[in-house]
Amino acid sequence: MKKNNTLEEIAAGLLRSNTVLLFPHISMDGDAMGSSAALCAALRKAGKTAHVVVEEALPDMVAFLDKGYCTENPGLSARPDACVCVDCGEYRRFPKRKELFCSGALTVCIDHHKTTVPFLDLNRIDGNAAATAEIVYDLIPLLGVEIDAEIGTALYAGIVTDTGKFQYSNTSQKTHLIAAKLHAIGVPAAEISIMLYQNERMEKRRLESRILGDAELFAGGRAVISCITRKILEETGGRLDETDGVTEALRDIRGVELACLLKEKADRTIKVSLRSKRDFDVAAFSEENGGGGHARAAGFTAKGRSVEEVKALLMRELAERLP
Amino acid sequence: MKKNNTLEEIAAGLLRSNTVLLFPHISMDGDAMGSSAALCAALRKAGKTAHVVVEEALPDMVAFLDKGYCTENPGLSARPDACVCVDCGEYRRFPKRKELFCSGALTVCIDHHKTTVPFLDLNRIDGNAAATAEIVYDLIPLLGVEIDAEIGTALYAGIVTDTGKFQYSNTSQKTHLIAAKLHAIGVPAAEISIMLYQNERMEKRRLESRILGDAELFAGGRAVISCITRKILEETGGRLDETDGVTEALRDIRGVELACLLKEKADRTIKVSLRSKRDFDVAAFSEENGGGGHARAAGFTAKGRSVEEVKALLMRELAERLP
Repeated sequence: MKKNNTLEEIAAGLLRSNTVLLFPHISMDGDAMGSSAALCAALRKAGKTAHVVVEEALPDMVAFLDKGYCTENPGLSARPDACVCVDCGEYRRFPKRKELFCSGALTVCIDHHKTTVPFLDLNRIDGNAAATAEIVYDLIPLLGVEIDAEIGTALYAGIVTDTGKFQYSNTSQKTHLIAAKLHAIGVPAAEISIMLYQNERMEKRRLESRILGDAELFAGGRAVISCITRKILEETGGRLDETDGVTEALRDIRGVELACLLKEKADRTIKVSLRSKRDFDVAAFSEENGGGGHARAAGFTAKGRSVEEVKALLMRELAERLP
Repeated sequence: MKKNNTLEEIAAGLLRSNTVLLFPHISMDGDAMGSSAALCAALRKAGKTAHVVVEEALPDMVAFLDKGYCTENPGLSARPDACVCVDCGEYRRFPKRKELFCSGALTVCIDHHKTTVPFLDLNRIDGNAAATAEIVYDLIPLLGVEIDAEIGTALYAGIVTDTGKFQYSNTSQKTHLIAAKLHAIGVPAAEISIMLYQNERMEKRRLESRILGDAELFAGGRAVISCITRKILEETGGRLDETDGVTEALRDIRGVELACLLKEKADRTIKVSLRSKRDFDVAAFSEENGGGGHARAAGFTAKGRSVEEVKALLMRELAERLP
């Protein structure tokens, strides 16, 4: 039975290692990238050979955080002393890198997802941390490294994205105290915000226009639904990975408790993304349909049916479920 | 020559008064309402007769902050001991209430706008405060009142709105330290966020859809423009006061430095709203055209020309100006 470790034990394990590889999850977000970049910078300041190992191109949003940390192949001549999965806690979150990961003499997990259970040599899982960056913020001083503006920039990016700009319910007193400290050491918070949030493709805006324009209220205005077909993607030039923000814009309509966005994938399966405001458990509903997620943000995939069919089924089903 | 006073002097003036009226600016935003509500609650806790005097209906977004503070007519039998303008520093920001305001035995200004100059008996103007709510946060303990969850809710709403969810460059270490303190005393930050930001009319989303769908890049992609005509308002059911957020969505397009939104008003004049990302001084450009504002958010009104004419003129002029 693996156990959760203290940050001191994690720090001791890393300090004993000379080469350390960091493994953020696929579909990297601001916290996966920010936490990994910050820890990589700190390990290098502590004299270690450290890299962030990736298996796909960096998403546009977080690419600015890579100051020479990321590589698809670290090119080590021997097995790494330590391999750390960051902001994730399952092998399927870094599938193509599993073999390299498991070659580490020491394996470590640093994560804040509530569903993660200890599964490696050392594990630091804190479901109360708003972001993995909060855990890394506490870990770095234990490596004997001071948090400078570059490390702070990566940590800030992790925190601001995983808390939805400090708006989600995971945001705590501690989150703001860390943000205050990062401001104090000169982290350029406003510029980071521009890099993260003010760099959207025009095609994304065209897609958003269609999603908002096509949206339909149902269940007496308690729910809203919109669909992205292959035709809409073709006409707007938008991509299915460019729907962050717009599902929330649907949820944020007055009186709406539940927002549904249907996305027709290239293989004609339908990805259903659900967001709720206060009460409706979209994780439970998604699990019934073979998917999963969080209580307020979850989803599942529907196969063998057209967008219109899935839409009609969903509207009927959800109209009954919504109080 | 009027001078800026210390918070201690402001507190002493208020503590000498028995009836205190608070005057937030017209077109009330989260900070005007939040600061006024917080100060009103604190003055009542200090045993004063206090009201927030308004001259128009409360905007939907901030109405939840009014816990019996706001009135159009305080119905006093004698002149008020003190009148305080909150989050503004000019009579034209509370035009219909000027006479009542000036009837105060003591007049006070509490504001954070950099352009405000001391003009009343007592003035506390701090251009470095991210929100007037930051100033009120420091003032309330000097009234001998402890900040409770209700006062904290109003202060938090002021801070979160005036900092753009802690993203604008006015956000400081102090801003986050205050937010941390408010979290610690039990302010329901996530629920406040729902009340402020997740309560949009469906018609607003329809209008946004049109604005985003009609947007045109120009000046080599360095600028973007979109227009709201009377016809679009009619077709979508949207209102001209429902464009918060969408001008920023235009600005946030990759490569765009400047976003222009033209709004045809009922009297056929054209309100031009401008937002810039980093460099372009929209305040200076707006002043040349008889308007004004901040360096990154400003506007002016064009008269005697159609939307299409103003659009063509602007695109030509700005294409030359943008570096």
